[in-house]
Amino acid sequence: MRAVDLLRRKRDGQPLSAEQIACFVAGATQGTWPDYQLGAMLMALFLRGMTSQETADLTTAMIASGERFDWGSDAVRAVDKHSTGGVGDKTSLILAPLAAACGALVPMMSGRGLGHTGGTLDKLEAIPGFRVALEPDEARAILYRVGCVMMSQTTRIVPADRILYALRDVTATVESIPLISASIMSKKIAEGICGLVLDVKVGHGAFMKTLDEARALVQSLLAIGRAHGVQTQAVITAMDQPLGAACGNALEVAEAIEVLKGGGPAEVRELSLELASRMVTLAGIPEARRRVENALSSGAGLETFGRILEAQGGDRRVIDQPTLLPVAPHREAIYAPRAGFFEGWHAEAVGRAVVALGGGRDRAEDRIDPAVGMVLQARRGDRVQAGELLATLHYRDSQRLAQARALLAEAGPIADNEPTALPLIYESWD
Amino acid sequence: MRAVDLLRRKRDGQPLSAEQIACFVAGATQGTWPDYQLGAMLMALFLRGMTSQETADLTTAMIASGERFDWGSDAVRAVDKHSTGGVGDKTSLILAPLAAACGALVPMMSGRGLGHTGGTLDKLEAIPGFRVALEPDEARAILYRVGCVMMSQTTRIVPADRILYALRDVTATVESIPLISASIMSKKIAEGICGLVLDVKVGHGAFMKTLDEARALVQSLLAIGRAHGVQTQAVITAMDQPLGAACGNALEVAEAIEVLKGGGPAEVRELSLELASRMVTLAGIPEARRRVENALSSGAGLETFGRILEAQGGDRRVIDQPTLLPVAPHREAIYAPRAGFFEGWHAEAVGRAVVALGGGRDRAEDRIDPAVGMVLQARRGDRVQAGELLATLHYRDSQRLAQARALLAEAGPIADNEPTALPLIYESWD
Repeated sequence: MRAVDLLRRKRDGQPLSAEQIACFVAGATQGTWPDYQLGAMLMALFLRGMTSQETADLTTAMIASGERFDWGSDAVRAVDKHSTGGVGDKTSLILAPLAAACGALVPMMSGRGLGHTGGTLDKLEAIPGFRVALEPDEARAILYRVGCVMMSQTTRIVPADRILYALRDVTATVESIPLISASIMSKKIAEGICGLVLDVKVGHGAFMKTLDEARALVQSLLAIGRAHGVQTQAVITAMDQPLGAACGNALEVAEAIEVLKGGGPAEVRELSLELASRMVTLAGIPEARRRVENALSSGAGLETFGRILEAQGGDRRVIDQPTLLPVAPHREAIYAPRAGFFEGWHAEAVGRAVVALGGGRDRAEDRIDPAVGMVLQARRGDRVQAGELLATLHYRDSQRLAQARALLAEAGPIADNEPTALPLIYESWD
Repeated sequence: MRAVDLLRRKRDGQPLSAEQIACFVAGATQGTWPDYQLGAMLMALFLRGMTSQETADLTTAMIASGERFDWGSDAVRAVDKHSTGGVGDKTSLILAPLAAACGALVPMMSGRGLGHTGGTLDKLEAIPGFRVALEPDEARAILYRVGCVMMSQTTRIVPADRILYALRDVTATVESIPLISASIMSKKIAEGICGLVLDVKVGHGAFMKTLDEARALVQSLLAIGRAHGVQTQAVITAMDQPLGAACGNALEVAEAIEVLKGGGPAEVRELSLELASRMVTLAGIPEARRRVENALSSGAGLETFGRILEAQGGDRRVIDQPTLLPVAPHREAIYAPRAGFFEGWHAEAVGRAVVALGGGRDRAEDRIDPAVGMVLQARRGDRVQAGELLATLHYRDSQRLAQARALLAEAGPIADNEPTALPLIYESWD
């Protein structure tokens, strides 16, 4: 099978066979295809698209590039959630312990933040001592002991994804639904799970800007799940405004703990309950919603969260003493310039402001300041007075503060009329 | 200007500016763009296409990668012809001396054959002693002395073309009208000519299979000519059957000499006269057709051909003693299996048979046997008897002969009814 023949085939819009796709993935992973052919193939895949069979086959080939967890007879209750990325989304920290407290096994491999969206690993690492890099044996032991493990992707899991992603990044072939889908699903299927809940964000703070785009991604992801025998559900949720009040790593951990204690913003609680219930259902456990609500109200979820911290080296005392989390030395308030109805914080602008403060990454190699971020006091629809507090910036460096303020200059508009309420969940795909 | 930004732009169907195209060409030529980005850009250019402005800008950038001939005030009579490649097409050897004999300057840079189509350089090198690799100073001296020089492309002329072509070859991006057009026109414009006649072949022995494809290529080529101030004309000619009777390098030289002597196949003579007349017209010389016909009948074209041979080290005696050209040791006749009307030799099959005999190249590094080839005795429309001679193979190696015969098994069909005549020239674009 010559690379140039596969390129010609794809270029002319003909689908590639499973064997041909495996040849491409092996060519990328083992370095047997020259770079010009890899670049040309990625652009051809981007512009010509891929059938659902091709996307499933790409996922298979990517999984086959590395190791895969196998939970044996326990696989039937191994489940996970994946979000396509948003601002202020700390639900993983809440739903994983809730689902585990209900009897599900949650072998969660997460990523880091890039650009304006946050990453679960960065949030976990804001907890003093917390280790996300675990060897498979340790991860397995923690999963069975606690019901949940929250770890980074090891180099042994889907190595093809790292290589292909790095190539896509430099060849302008990132924003392809089949390539994104295979990247997401290969890593999740390699976790050895039987069920997966997808949180596909839509809105100007999300990767998908319209409901139609989000639906196309959902359909692609669900088709891969079906082809690989992983029960997959999806909810399409709003990402025009940040989720909850806290944006920034340590601030979000504190808010997640608040929610696990029964408090926190209602929308964070509601989305976490919704997603956790779906996970528990997919784990084959009946009356999932009731059980998840009980796990929250009884404190069982919080207890599981504490055990995760202990198992992975984190300082469990942060649960009761949030000041043990990193704290930024300075704060600056943002006030309403006039009276009116607050239209909500613009999610992408808030995400970019947090990056400017040092709480996120523009490039994969950037270091993160876990303490900085932003807490949103006003919410869409609030009637505000001139001079009323809209948000608080937690910062370390005044130059970075100035950059963040510039990014936020038009990110919290005030209108004369009350804005319409926006839904949290647009639709669900079971 | 970052490569990834240009890739994103082209990927999304937006045209690139002259500066952006120059950045890509410099990236390829100077090695400053990584291979994966070059491969991705070629595929994006292939699949998204290029506007005529982009194609003209690509041509400009390719020319700027190297040197360019400058004939000063003589440029107004410097003209050339380019053919898109066929089987049995030896017209360059005839029309160049004819046009030069009429007062045109013909600084002809040609290529070698690849695949089933022949190349002018290979034909010239069948003449003992003939040198095609000339330094610019020597080429200039010969051009002014003889009125014509027939040379290979030096490494100093359009180096970008060699690099881009090599990349296109391995990334399945050869068959793109804008990329083909820029490749052809950059080399011709770098000859410093004021006028160019294009012979665009159409048919199953040509690169363009349909008249519509040929027209699209013509329009692209003429637009580049216009944009660069080179008067360009095109004729679309038939390539379903080989042109003339001789196919194979030395055999074609002998046929070209026959035509210059006033004999040879009528279609070779007619196409040579047509193309040479257009060249002479573009050189600003009046009554071109009459002059070219005179140059043929008076022997002035043959005399100029002899002077080209002398100037470039070729053995001029081949004009009167064709046996001084390389001769294959063996011949094999192909006879009609039954009576009927001969439908003509299939051009691509004949081209491939000549390659199989050793007279062409499958790969650029293959060596050529100048002596081998095929002479076609029967022509489309001939009424033949069973056992009548249809063609003669000139061969050196019996294993290669067997391959060639296999390729020709169905390449000369005989029908019960007389086939319709096919035109030689489909249409002209002035």
